Amino acid sequence: MSDYRAPVKDMRFVINELAGLARINVLPGFEEATPDLVDAVLEEASQLAAEVIGPTNAIGDSQGCEVKDGQVYVPEEFKAAYRQYMEGGWPGIAMDPEYGGQGLPALVGTAVEEMLQSANLAWSLGPLLTEGAIHAIELHGTTELKDRFLEPMISGQWTGTMNLTEPQAGSNLAAIRTQAIPKGDSYRITGQKIFITWGDHNMTDNVIHLVLARTPDAPAGVKGLSLFVVPKMQINTDGGAGERNGVTTVSVEHKLGIHGSPTCVLDFDNAEGSLVGEIGAGLTNMFTMMNRARLSVGLEGVAITERAYQQALAYALERVQGGAPGHDGDVAIIQHPDVRRMLLTMKATNEAMRALAYLNAAHIDLAEHATDESERALHQARVDLLTPVVKGWLTENSQALTSLGLQVHGGSGYIEETGAAQHYRDARILTIYEGTTGIQAADLVGRKILRDGGATFSALLDEMAELDAALAAAGEELATVHDAHVAGVAGLRESVKWLLENAGSDANAPGSVSYHLLMQTGTVVGGWHMARAGLIAKQKLDEGAADADFYRSKLLTARFYAEQVMPVAYSHARSVRAGADTIMAFSLDQFASE
Amino acid sequence: MSDYRAPVKDMRFVINELAGLARINVLPGFEEATPDLVDAVLEEASQLAAEVIGPTNAIGDSQGCEVKDGQVYVPEEFKAAYRQYMEGGWPGIAMDPEYGGQGLPALVGTAVEEMLQSANLAWSLGPLLTEGAIHAIELHGTTELKDRFLEPMISGQWTGTMNLTEPQAGSNLAAIRTQAIPKGDSYRITGQKIFITWGDHNMTDNVIHLVLARTPDAPAGVKGLSLFVVPKMQINTDGGAGERNGVTTVSVEHKLGIHGSPTCVLDFDNAEGSLVGEIGAGLTNMFTMMNRARLSVGLEGVAITERAYQQALAYALERVQGGAPGHDGDVAIIQHPDVRRMLLTMKATNEAMRALAYLNAAHIDLAEHATDESERALHQARVDLLTPVVKGWLTENSQALTSLGLQVHGGSGYIEETGAAQHYRDARILTIYEGTTGIQAADLVGRKILRDGGATFSALLDEMAELDAALAAAGEELATVHDAHVAGVAGLRESVKWLLENAGSDANAPGSVSYHLLMQTGTVVGGWHMARAGLIAKQKLDEGAADADFYRSKLLTARFYAEQVMPVAYSHARSVRAGADTIMAFSLDQFASE
Repeated sequence: MSDYRAPVKDMRFVINELAGLARINVLPGFEEATPDLVDAVLEEASQLAAEVIGPTNAIGDSQGCEVKDGQVYVPEEFKAAYRQYMEGGWPGIAMDPEYGGQGLPALVGTAVEEMLQSANLAWSLGPLLTEGAIHAIELHGTTELKDRFLEPMISGQWTGTMNLTEPQAGSNLAAIRTQAIPKGDSYRITGQKIFITWGDHNMTDNVIHLVLARTPDAPAGVKGLSLFVVPKMQINTDGGAGERNGVTTVSVEHKLGIHGSPTCVLDFDNAEGSLVGEIGAGLTNMFTMMNRARLSVGLEGVAITERAYQQALAYALERVQGGAPGHDGDVAIIQHPDVRRMLLTMKATNEAMRALAYLNAAHIDLAEHATDESERALHQARVDLLTPVVKGWLTENSQALTSLGLQVHGGSGYIEETGAAQHYRDARILTIYEGTTGIQAADLVGRKILRDGGATFSALLDEMAELDAALAAAGEELATVHDAHVAGVAGLRESVKWLLENAGSDANAPGSVSYHLLMQTGTVVGGWHMARAGLIAKQKLDEGAADADFYRSKLLTARFYAEQVMPVAYSHARSVRAGADTIMAFSLDQFASE
Repeated sequence: MSDYRAPVKDMRFVINELAGLARINVLPGFEEATPDLVDAVLEEASQLAAEVIGPTNAIGDSQGCEVKDGQVYVPEEFKAAYRQYMEGGWPGIAMDPEYGGQGLPALVGTAVEEMLQSANLAWSLGPLLTEGAIHAIELHGTTELKDRFLEPMISGQWTGTMNLTEPQAGSNLAAIRTQAIPKGDSYRITGQKIFITWGDHNMTDNVIHLVLARTPDAPAGVKGLSLFVVPKMQINTDGGAGERNGVTTVSVEHKLGIHGSPTCVLDFDNAEGSLVGEIGAGLTNMFTMMNRARLSVGLEGVAITERAYQQALAYALERVQGGAPGHDGDVAIIQHPDVRRMLLTMKATNEAMRALAYLNAAHIDLAEHATDESERALHQARVDLLTPVVKGWLTENSQALTSLGLQVHGGSGYIEETGAAQHYRDARILTIYEGTTGIQAADLVGRKILRDGGATFSALLDEMAELDAALAAAGEELATVHDAHVAGVAGLRESVKWLLENAGSDANAPGSVSYHLLMQTGTVVGGWHMARAGLIAKQKLDEGAADADFYRSKLLTARFYAEQVMPVAYSHARSVRAGADTIMAFSLDQFASE
């Protein structure tokens, strides 16, 4: 057993009440996803997370991975946990039933994924990347490729990877140099890829690489990139793993955190691969998996914060130190107002983060399964708009919040054996991989706001503003929530207006304000969901619903969020209005500090 | 050589222009501290930092310290660096000439200290703690104790430590149990102390422990604590180190960062020690050294941010990735507006932090050396008020800023060999030791604001407001600085007023708002110094002073601070006004996330 317990109550609340499972399980293909079934899935997954995956977390951190003769070895405990995960059918929980998946909504799959990530962030990256690779093959592969790869990947028999980065090509994928030379029906891939998460391991007998590479005579830049599937081991005629393909692991990185996740330098030397999708459509096709992966990384922010919160809370309830107002003698430190502030900042922000991540998953389900095409398009537009916010805001928060978790422990938090520092170290990668926060912010202002003149964002703001009346009517208990929501939405509308008005005349304006606009958006949209949660909680309490403690806590948490978290939206708004002038005025010499 | 270069230009600017060295070097004892001498000291210290101490930084991180048979061993390179530091007379730079010190102002000593800390944070903790121990003996020890310990400590021959924490006594020192039993002229000390920084090592032949312990029949709580000096080795009649005293190192901690600094569990078993100061005055006496140590830890926030900034800047100037508005082809990433935003957030905030730390050192010099008693008292009051702000605000910032430094590196930042992650790990202790941020915040609102009804704080606000007119007169170039300063001071005045009005009726109000009030104070006071810096820079530019690039950069940095850093003061102000109600409304059960 580990010390992690899945927050099933809050997950259920978000799935049923905030995301509205009822509007999803009426859709074709999702009829079985009833609240009762979802409850059962959550309970079973929470056991897996607590009892099987969770106990491997500290082991992976202290042991790490090693590479011998081009083969990566992970801790033995990881292999055992993976076997149980696979035997339980968890890899296919939200995958296509045609290839052996269980076909549950992404909304439900998201809750399961959060549990696995909380249990062991490093370990859960294997499944995360595999899911992305599956989506890429599903969406862009030929029937033959689907038949070859999907079943063994959905069953968990093989895992998958995403191969984008090269030493000279990080955020700028146009600089990719890896070559793909046609030979018969297939291609020969040659080049070096770095930062490949779970690029190799010994948990399964094959690893399926999705690789961006350049065909001969391809145009320069991103339009010359194509996507290939390159298995570590050749596929036998019986469909199983055969001879070694030309892919070897050169080294694994020595990282700040997620030590249990092998981050590989991969050498492709004349490796046989197959084209996925059209020639030249590599980046577009890779993005279909990357967008899903970005949402999963955003979810990792929730997961690591949840685990850090549980540990900090347990410590604060147990550690006795000093006196506090209204108490005789020494008290558990949770009685100190400033410790409460830290814990509640973690709790409130993370519940808003969870709501945002799950809501986005619900929009994915509706975008893919709604019967009406225009409805599907509306949900897809919302997913597209919020993907960079889910990735950027949730992961940036997770660093500040795991830091608070460490801080609650005082001096013990700095000692590695306590475990709080591991969460802090693990969380630090989240704002970097699958596109840095800067890349997310650029995506938000460029592709998601400016490209349609703010239309999609404006629709979101209008929908958010519809909550005003209900909040006003809710009276004193939600008064600060009402105030914060109204001001938050108005401020966000102003920031977007500023961007639209200034982007044309100043090419540096979008990039200068993008980070603060992303953070403001996340804060206010998260606040909207918390406001909705507060209203639902108040209604449940008024009706005398069971589990009053949960609803009372939810109402208070919505209030804390409005009073103590929403204020940062104002500061981001002011930074947005400052624009680009001062940022761009510095000459390179003027940056020097010496 | 290391990659660190002391920011001598900015240090000189802060010392001469902002802190006004001219008002200090006219004081008795400081006449020699002319700008020319200070320049020479800074140049020499910067060489020591770059060439001798700096290169040991990564070594200490990767090797760490080990304990064998109760003795701690540090990396060989640390010993060599320490020898050169000692031979150069640096330990005594700002110490009493009567005992071999060089008697320079604390203002100058602070700049030297920053360089050592930037060069190797872990190593520099040895000198930091030694300085605190010297002050405790200087201020509270008998002539005999001073004669025995001060010269060898000021020369660097011996180092010093502070022994406060025990497993059950962290932030709450009232719970200390270590016993001191009188025996003849001295005492026998028995008990276990934890988290003792540089509690043992093999760089010198003695370590002088300052220990809080409880005499027989002492009252419970902090009034029963007395301060003792307990050498690791008994002192021979010739004044040198002799036989082993009853102090042994049980273990060193395995920490997130500062691996080169041995954090010890010390076992005192009938160890011989001498009383320092009066019986029962232990905590008060320890606080005289702790307050200085707190300022030094605040300074560590500046130092680690400076080093992280230099590394991030070098990377951003070198790393080419993608295109940017107004440039053909790929550019160094410093041309991307969002990378500039990150770098400038580091630069601007840290320059404000440096100003605050050095100004406080100047107030110490004036509090100790001004000829007029009432002037001394005014400066001491300012030091007392701002000590928790220097400790709290500078260290909290250093975590966010070293995180930005890592972020600028993208994926490489997460790889340990890059070195950016070490700064991030090292910085994480700063908000914890020498009193957590929560303890600093409680000190600010309780002892420093409420105790005198806000009088000292009010005087500070009045002084800050005196700058308004000059800023208004400075015109367009400082318009945003003027606006931010006026609004910042007004907002801070309101927050303090809120605290004074609500503390009486709600015992939980001070603790609930203390963190945000501390952060608001730091932001606005830092902004005041940046506004002053901007005015001076503008004047220098108007006069056609040499080094226009430096002054232009300073003016722009003041503007960036006003536009992009000051806004967080608003959000802290709003959180202050939210008060204690929601924070205290949660029952313990309602914190649960499961």
